[in-house]
Amino acid sequence: MSVEQAAQGRETGIFRSRWVHAPDGVEELEPAELAPGYRAAGVAAGLKGSGATDVGLLSCDAARVSSALLLTRNAAAAAPVRVCRERCDAAGVRGAVVNSGNANAATGERGYRDALAMRDAAAAALACEPRAVAVAETGVIGVPLPIDDLARGIEVACAALSGRGGDEFSRAIMTTDRTPKSCTVRAGGVTLSAQAKGAGMMQPGFATMLCFVQTDAAVAEPDAALRAAVADSFERITVDGQMSTNDTVLMQATGAAGEPLPDGLLDAVLLGLALEIVADGEGATRVGRIEARGAASVAEAELVARAVANSPLVKTALYGRDPNWGRIAQAAGMALAGEELAELGPDAIEAGALACEAAEAEISVTLGRGDAAAHVYFSDLNHEYVRINSEYTS
Amino acid sequence: MSVEQAAQGRETGIFRSRWVHAPDGVEELEPAELAPGYRAAGVAAGLKGSGATDVGLLSCDAARVSSALLLTRNAAAAAPVRVCRERCDAAGVRGAVVNSGNANAATGERGYRDALAMRDAAAAALACEPRAVAVAETGVIGVPLPIDDLARGIEVACAALSGRGGDEFSRAIMTTDRTPKSCTVRAGGVTLSAQAKGAGMMQPGFATMLCFVQTDAAVAEPDAALRAAVADSFERITVDGQMSTNDTVLMQATGAAGEPLPDGLLDAVLLGLALEIVADGEGATRVGRIEARGAASVAEAELVARAVANSPLVKTALYGRDPNWGRIAQAAGMALAGEELAELGPDAIEAGALACEAAEAEISVTLGRGDAAAHVYFSDLNHEYVRINSEYTS
Repeated sequence: MSVEQAAQGRETGIFRSRWVHAPDGVEELEPAELAPGYRAAGVAAGLKGSGATDVGLLSCDAARVSSALLLTRNAAAAAPVRVCRERCDAAGVRGAVVNSGNANAATGERGYRDALAMRDAAAAALACEPRAVAVAETGVIGVPLPIDDLARGIEVACAALSGRGGDEFSRAIMTTDRTPKSCTVRAGGVTLSAQAKGAGMMQPGFATMLCFVQTDAAVAEPDAALRAAVADSFERITVDGQMSTNDTVLMQATGAAGEPLPDGLLDAVLLGLALEIVADGEGATRVGRIEARGAASVAEAELVARAVANSPLVKTALYGRDPNWGRIAQAAGMALAGEELAELGPDAIEAGALACEAAEAEISVTLGRGDAAAHVYFSDLNHEYVRINSEYTS
Repeated sequence: MSVEQAAQGRETGIFRSRWVHAPDGVEELEPAELAPGYRAAGVAAGLKGSGATDVGLLSCDAARVSSALLLTRNAAAAAPVRVCRERCDAAGVRGAVVNSGNANAATGERGYRDALAMRDAAAAALACEPRAVAVAETGVIGVPLPIDDLARGIEVACAALSGRGGDEFSRAIMTTDRTPKSCTVRAGGVTLSAQAKGAGMMQPGFATMLCFVQTDAAVAEPDAALRAAVADSFERITVDGQMSTNDTVLMQATGAAGEPLPDGLLDAVLLGLALEIVADGEGATRVGRIEARGAASVAEAELVARAVANSPLVKTALYGRDPNWGRIAQAAGMALAGEELAELGPDAIEAGALACEAAEAEISVTLGRGDAAAHVYFSDLNHEYVRINSEYTS
């Protein structure tokens, strides 16, 4: 994508949503190409019945790397999340291993041992400290991991590591995603590459997904930078209101380029990926953006925005192109149950975009209780969501 | 239904769910027959395009009546709810007027005036104090009330009032309900009749619905009795997690029979109606009962039970007959985000009933955090829910 495209319509690539505002001068590269100093691979280890690739491996080869690692707060966190939490040097992650066939969640002590064994196998293959390897898993819950198949897959993946492996890696971490989600951008003398997966079990705190970000920029406080970018991207989306057991976001930065990340670049890339995840929510045909305004506090605005975004009545209206502002009023009133609220009529609610043909619909509700605002992006609820989730064992 | 049936299988009538335990000696009458001292009617006033009956009128003719009136806590409460809250003698309701074509919600000051006019028309027709009349409305949101049509309908309904009008009344308050929900029972020398409607926008606090209960029993504290029965019935059900703008439950008691209500009768009737509402949730094919056990508190158990009951992943599993305990673990973990929780594996979760052929599926999750428990009844999520709500303007 040209700089002109990036600065204007964002018709293609990661910045194509009108809700994404990338800094000027961003050049988009092929997503296969990783930021300098990183290699990745994706292979099929037989965990998916379909034979699709299901093991991803990521390695940083630079002399120095700093990192940040964000994990789900779900109290029933999966084994790999607990391993990362308890046994990983979150600030110094060099490699990551992912399987997308088995979430290794609700698998007990054996699951924990398996996740450790998976991590150790990756550390051995990458010749680095076990504590410098993050492990992430996604897929079916409650089924023991085929650890031998996985170990073999990791060896094959290690031999296939490539600086142009971004695309393979992003495909190897997909579950019910219809399309891979990845991008590589260059701006201000630095390169940033990122790969994500989403689909179902998608909701705040942050949204259920996996995401890996690599850059050669110098990032002074990776944890703060990543948290801020995630708060405005993955924490702003919902597909079905479900927080997963396996959410993981990893960012690595080598500093080899000797330049910082341009302001807004990480935020724009993560928001772009987050919106791709919503747009690819299970069965999704449209994306909505609900903004709650005039709230007494940001927390209240967010509560209302989430209630609207997660209302199956609003989500089916988004699908049916029904400008049904009454359902927005109902959801807002439910979120504020017991509070004083002025009448929410057509003057307070903009719902016309629900009816338009565009794939992105912007709606709002003005509460008349103060000056605070918050927004959430959400997908529609339709027959395909029901079909996927009533026929698919996750 | 015979006493034996009532005591045993509950194969027919209001007590047919295995989760309903009526007191012994209950005789079930035709639902058309109201408790002595009450008359009702249902007529078509043209509010529904289909020509179906859409105005219900209810009157108590006894010399004395005491009542209790429970209303939605939705902050965007509809005009009739606000009229009831501000202008009604909740403890002395003699008559009730209902329309099921127009919710009169988010209709501004005009809506409030219209609800008052509707109530006053009913009071005039019934020749009683306006403050002794409750008004309830359900149907499309945000559209002005055709008050002239309604006033004419109320006059026609008044002329049609009958002690055998329970069935007509229950049909006249339906919206997307597939079947009317009403029953009349006799036990311990008293009679109790009740009519309800449900379908969409169904969730605690209490569940979205209308319900009217009439009895000739002497009820010392109708408000306390009704609140307790509602807490174990309508507040225990969810169809789509949506609290409506119009929820209303009215109970009237004349005391003419000179006997109290037998213990458990009101609770059993309301639970029976609540379960009929869940079973008739928009598109519902099955009902689930989730019990969360071993919680640190009842509030925590309820939080978990509701999270499971409202999870679209669990609801599609109920539809798809998928014994997917992993989704129960995920929802429970989400409800307890940030808390300490032991592994929720197959030992802690009973989900087998999801897979069975029965229309009622009983599942549970044991949290290992204490001794408290709570349960919630819920319907499945399926294609018909999507169809109804993407094609129907509510």
